[in-house]
Amino acid sequence: MANKVRTAEMTWREVEAAIKNGAAALVPMGSTEEHGPHAPTGDYMIADTIAERVATNTGDVMTPTIPFSYSEYFRHYPGTITLQPETLTLLVRDTVYCLLDQGFRHVILFNGHKGNEPVLMTLIRKIRRERGVLVPVVAPLGFGLTPAVQKELYGDTPTGHGAEPIGSIQSYLRPDLVDLDKAEDWASKEYLGQPANLNAITFEGRTVNLAINMGEITPPSGSLSDPLVASPEKGERIVANSIEGLTAFVKWFKSVDPQVEP
Amino acid sequence: MANKVRTAEMTWREVEAAIKNGAAALVPMGSTEEHGPHAPTGDYMIADTIAERVATNTGDVMTPTIPFSYSEYFRHYPGTITLQPETLTLLVRDTVYCLLDQGFRHVILFNGHKGNEPVLMTLIRKIRRERGVLVPVVAPLGFGLTPAVQKELYGDTPTGHGAEPIGSIQSYLRPDLVDLDKAEDWASKEYLGQPANLNAITFEGRTVNLAINMGEITPPSGSLSDPLVASPEKGERIVANSIEGLTAFVKWFKSVDPQVEP
Amino acid sequence: MANKVRTAEMTWREVEAAIKNGAAALVPMGSTEEHGPHAPTGDYMIADTIAERVATNTGDVMTPTIPFSYSEYFRHYPGTITLQPETLTLLVRDTVYCLLDQGFRHVILFNGHKGNEPVLMTLIRKIRRERGVLVPVVAPLGFGLTPAVQKELYGDTPTGHGAEPIGSIQSYLRPDLVDLDKAEDWASKEYLGQPANLNAITFEGRTVNLAINMGEITPPSGSLSDPLVASPEKGERIVANSIEGLTAFVKWFKSVDPQVEP
Amino acid sequence: MANKVRTAEMTWREVEAAIKNGAAALVPMGSTEEHGPHAPTGDYMIADTIAERVATNTGDVMTPTIPFSYSEYFRHYPGTITLQPETLTLLVRDTVYCLLDQGFRHVILFNGHKGNEPVLMTLIRKIRRERGVLVPVVAPLGFGLTPAVQKELYGDTPTGHGAEPIGSIQSYLRPDLVDLDKAEDWASKEYLGQPANLNAITFEGRTVNLAINMGEITPPSGSLSDPLVASPEKGERIVANSIEGLTAFVKWFKSVDPQVEP
Amino acid sequence: MANKVRTAEMTWREVEAAIKNGAAALVPMGSTEEHGPHAPTGDYMIADTIAERVATNTGDVMTPTIPFSYSEYFRHYPGTITLQPETLTLLVRDTVYCLLDQGFRHVILFNGHKGNEPVLMTLIRKIRRERGVLVPVVAPLGFGLTPAVQKELYGDTPTGHGAEPIGSIQSYLRPDLVDLDKAEDWASKEYLGQPANLNAITFEGRTVNLAINMGEITPPSGSLSDPLVASPEKGERIVANSIEGLTAFVKWFKSVDPQVEP
Amino acid sequence: MANKVRTAEMTWREVEAAIKNGAAALVPMGSTEEHGPHAPTGDYMIADTIAERVATNTGDVMTPTIPFSYSEYFRHYPGTITLQPETLTLLVRDTVYCLLDQGFRHVILFNGHKGNEPVLMTLIRKIRRERGVLVPVVAPLGFGLTPAVQKELYGDTPTGHGAEPIGSIQSYLRPDLVDLDKAEDWASKEYLGQPANLNAITFEGRTVNLAINMGEITPPSGSLSDPLVASPEKGERIVANSIEGLTAFVKWFKSVDPQVEP
Repeated sequence: MANKVRTAEMTWREVEAAIKNGAAALVPMGSTEEHGPHAPTGDYMIADTIAERVATNTGDVMTPTIPFSYSEYFRHYPGTITLQPETLTLLVRDTVYCLLDQGFRHVILFNGHKGNEPVLMTLIRKIRRERGVLVPVVAPLGFGLTPAVQKELYGDTPTGHGAEPIGSIQSYLRPDLVDLDKAEDWASKEYLGQPANLNAITFEGRTVNLAINMGEITPPSGSLSDPLVASPEKGERIVANSIEGLTAFVKWFKSVDPQVEP
Repeated sequence: MANKVRTAEMTWREVEAAIKNGAAALVPMGSTEEHGPHAPTGDYMIADTIAERVATNTGDVMTPTIPFSYSEYFRHYPGTITLQPETLTLLVRDTVYCLLDQGFRHVILFNGHKGNEPVLMTLIRKIRRERGVLVPVVAPLGFGLTPAVQKELYGDTPTGHGAEPIGSIQSYLRPDLVDLDKAEDWASKEYLGQPANLNAITFEGRTVNLAINMGEITPPSGSLSDPLVASPEKGERIVANSIEGLTAFVKWFKSVDPQVEP
Repeated sequence: MANKVRTAEMTWREVEAAIKNGAAALVPMGSTEEHGPHAPTGDYMIADTIAERVATNTGDVMTPTIPFSYSEYFRHYPGTITLQPETLTLLVRDTVYCLLDQGFRHVILFNGHKGNEPVLMTLIRKIRRERGVLVPVVAPLGFGLTPAVQKELYGDTPTGHGAEPIGSIQSYLRPDLVDLDKAEDWASKEYLGQPANLNAITFEGRTVNLAINMGEITPPSGSLSDPLVASPEKGERIVANSIEGLTAFVKWFKSVDPQVEP
Repeated sequence: MANKVRTAEMTWREVEAAIKNGAAALVPMGSTEEHGPHAPTGDYMIADTIAERVATNTGDVMTPTIPFSYSEYFRHYPGTITLQPETLTLLVRDTVYCLLDQGFRHVILFNGHKGNEPVLMTLIRKIRRERGVLVPVVAPLGFGLTPAVQKELYGDTPTGHGAEPIGSIQSYLRPDLVDLDKAEDWASKEYLGQPANLNAITFEGRTVNLAINMGEITPPSGSLSDPLVASPEKGERIVANSIEGLTAFVKWFKSVDPQVEP
Repeated sequence: MANKVRTAEMTWREVEAAIKNGAAALVPMGSTEEHGPHAPTGDYMIADTIAERVATNTGDVMTPTIPFSYSEYFRHYPGTITLQPETLTLLVRDTVYCLLDQGFRHVILFNGHKGNEPVLMTLIRKIRRERGVLVPVVAPLGFGLTPAVQKELYGDTPTGHGAEPIGSIQSYLRPDLVDLDKAEDWASKEYLGQPANLNAITFEGRTVNLAINMGEITPPSGSLSDPLVASPEKGERIVANSIEGLTAFVKWFKSVDPQVEP
Repeated sequence: MANKVRTAEMTWREVEAAIKNGAAALVPMGSTEEHGPHAPTGDYMIADTIAERVATNTGDVMTPTIPFSYSEYFRHYPGTITLQPETLTLLVRDTVYCLLDQGFRHVILFNGHKGNEPVLMTLIRKIRRERGVLVPVVAPLGFGLTPAVQKELYGDTPTGHGAEPIGSIQSYLRPDLVDLDKAEDWASKEYLGQPANLNAITFEGRTVNLAINMGEITPPSGSLSDPLVASPEKGERIVANSIEGLTAFVKWFKSVDPQVEP
């Protein structure tokens, strides 16, 4: 039973020992939401796997992965579970406060869903005000698909939700769940006649935030970019890059005193 | 990719097809909490596995398993994550409403944690009032450890949290995570000089509800009964009994129209 | 003005004196809800009377009785007032905190409505976490209708809501309000073809929680058992047994220090 | 069992009949709070009695009396139970919505505690917006102690909380609970050197709202005016005047269609 | 840059200096709501101007003016913005707590909208309980239109919303925004056949609170009294009287220690 | 009274006419928060002025400007008023719903504070779900300081909070409120030894979100960049560019049907 990193697989005595040894607690978060007709809805597996490998590298522990996100814009796609912002806030707050109350000093949110950012940013400020502790939010995808790696892997080919990089990553991690033959037409369509993404249109070069639903800027597939460029090699590269970066970060953050003035 | 039952492993098109085929959606729920010094904290794996096998039997689907519960009485044990009742309420409500909105007609909560019952009972009444739909709550443990099986497996030996039946079930499902050598002293102690369980004392034969913490009625171990009676055979028997009962229930419930007067 | 036990009938100086004398504060709770066509809706009178007699026995005091409960399943019956769970939680919490803030050390909830239990269990845990104090919940009905008394009075005849034991108790306490001639057909019907109670069906021997409304398992009467077995003698026996048990409990609880670790 | 007016004393069939007959539902509200050292804390008995007599006059019904108010300024006095504004709002809203849902068309709040007014004013506007129904709030005390009666009974002698008119009314309704020998010093003191009442000081002739506590403008007694002027005759006069006025009002209001544009 | 009183026009260093000098913080509040067809909706300008002149007189500072109120009864008139009571409560609470946290000891609410009173009264009691500080609420209109000034300016001519005194005050402060030629018919109509104001009818001489909308007691104009009696001279008199009274009050309140027992 | 654009300066009849003419409603939002020792805290004046000029160009109207933001990271600086996220959400929601209820079809949020973005993004999704209407959020600063203008005005000189571009804009709009002689040392400091901004550090090239307070990445001044590069000419250029862009946007958006599927 050596080297366990999942608190769910540890006894409470083992978690107790980890706390005494100064372990950090990683809290992986991901989504269950549409990722095109060729890839599985459960992207939380990615944050889960990356957190596990990072924790193994650093000798820290991870809680069970939170499998639902604030994915309002995907909620019309069967299989998507979206939490309201206040639900997500309470869920993560309860989790973090349990960990802090039990003696963990370093708690790190591994946020696999970019759409959670607005919610988590206000939450970590609330936590700082209430408890005087810094809780960082890191993005496993962002740590893996750095601009350099983006360029290396995709060149000028655009990536986007419902296709890359999730297709490649899942091809690497869970090849049994990806079937590129099922991919459908893709496009990143204009909305109201303007260039658009999920949160905004660009009007004459300026960003205008709008509550856009996925189906308004893609074909029925829900794919914003070409799923067929996926490859397990790309996925492996991204995951490895993410693990490397996050391993360094976690090690460094444990050298920081997270207890600060509110 | 035939026979997938986890929505997280399905594409949204596959979930769409499942809805069109009239599949029910199982929502497994479990805890991450102390289970004695010999067994892992993550009991949600049990509800997860049972739901998977039931769904396979019935041709239905399951969402990702909610890994945290209302486990207030265990919150002092390292590794326990307890959600506040209002957090759990919102979390399950958001999940159920996504499923209903996408067209699932039969949603069934597989509740692996007895302590969630008070919260879920008020929630399913709220859901009925707001949506006019019946959402049943079934207990995988209760379905497995029926009085007859309890007697068959344990005779008159008491079972209790922090030991059985979780020890046996995990010995069967995840033998790598159970180490009976790590078991410590166990006892079901009185509280304030009266016979007690987690929610009540018995005073002169009558029940008095009290907010008791686990550590007040057990030794440091957190074990209410003898962990050493665990065996994978017992676990297998309980799990098989649960799956059999739940398979029959799910099949039956799908023959019921869950849409009712509020 | 000697021997007053109702704080509502005392001056604030008298309540002040009671606190100084170490009196406990009993908080009676009951419902206004259907009890069949022959008995009054206001069952809170029962908890009120029992609390009064207990407080007289023990030299303690009682607040005014909270006359409404969480009675969602009865809400279609004219006269039923049901509070939402969050309303009941706030109402009892405010009451308890006033008493604690004014110096009462022992506060005891006399809960006359079984359906309040899920709400009160989460509330007393919240109170313990926020104030570090044990607030017990006792059930006047459960204290009176112990298994032995149930057998003595009813033998194998079933009892159930909308009839017994409320009919007998009200025949004893308020004979003017009970008219057995008005009783209608009674039955404990199956729901969806399964044995059922208000919170669950029994499917192949296993319990399945469901949000059932009273009208789904009874005839129009709202009576689950035979109202005609009621008698004031039965009521007297139950009330006396309850008072005896609660008197002993309150005396004992006052010997306990309710201030504990959260 | 003819002529019952308390829904708590009626069977649900009797309440059903009352609704069919077009009865209005009166909801009496009062407080449990300090009323000086000579009079009982439970003033809700007054609203209760007056509502009962009015309902008897008009052939309508009344729910159980809500015995707690928003009495923040009295909360330091033993025996006072004060509800937070949001608690009171939810409590009355749940009550009113049950009555409306069951078919009552005219619901009238009999508010015995002036301090509830700010809370009830925002509540009845919320009810109007959500349900499009007018729910009036009447004050039994204000209906009884009209300016003319005030002059007739007290002339220029001031009245005030902790003394009159509650002392007289309770001397009439519950003489067993009033003991003028226990009265202590009274005064309506300045606060911060300015003329004051519970909600405001008067600064150079202008009103300035302040969150004043009772103990800051009275001696320890909590009496703002002279308790010794109390007499049962005065109480009878006030109560009779209130009943007369409210009887007329209820009769009139039942001739009004309370369903309006939100 | 000497003599600035608006924190919005000051640098943070200047606000810092003001706090060190013991300045009070005035928080002006007003409405954007109908004021008849002849006067602008933004009455918050009045509280803003008066607060500015008072702060100039006393050497204190003012925050930006909150321009929206709880104006539920005017919400059907185009241009009215009404905040829900809970929104207004949070908004003012956040504002006050920022000021207290930064070191202001005297915070005074300049409430330009009478309809806010119920909300602010419960808020300042909450603030007192949570922080132990007295936060007064003053009414610029009430300070200006004292009974003596009312009589002096209007004699026995009634004033009322949608006309006076706002018409006169705006004629004085913002003559460009008032056009008496646009005034329409005015009246203070009965409601349901009874004398009425926005919050109540008078039934046989007694007040009955009702959730009345403005349009129910006025002609389409929204004017309760005669707009044509407006004059800038009247406005000047009222404003001057208000400033004089408030200047005295602020000076006095700064001599008071606002930190009190909760 | 021609050409008024501020609803606060219009009568309700004028707002009514604007709605009938199809006017859009602009809702300007800004902050009261630190902007260095040389510039005023009230940046909401900027959104206010820009909205006014845009509305004048397009023939639309604007509500009063909301002067407070979610400025948690600046809350230690005297004069900063920060709203909690839930307060801001309710405040803007109430405002938008009033406008929609009164008949405005196009409502546009002019958000002057970047820190509000996370809150407003979740809000406009909530509005879309509840009302099926698109409410865009535009940033007056972002519309003015486009990349091209940034380069034109500042070249490679960095800009940042507590200095540019607010210093220049206020120098142009309110030169009386800016005093560059009061500027203090500025810097964009590392936090915990890493490059940082208010919401994140950059760790080995990757972004890590953290709840950083302003004082942790600047000298006492609160200035992240050099205030002395400010000039009214720069401010005029930015404001003009913003007005031009927003004028075009508002005109275009009014040609769009904002009513959409939720």
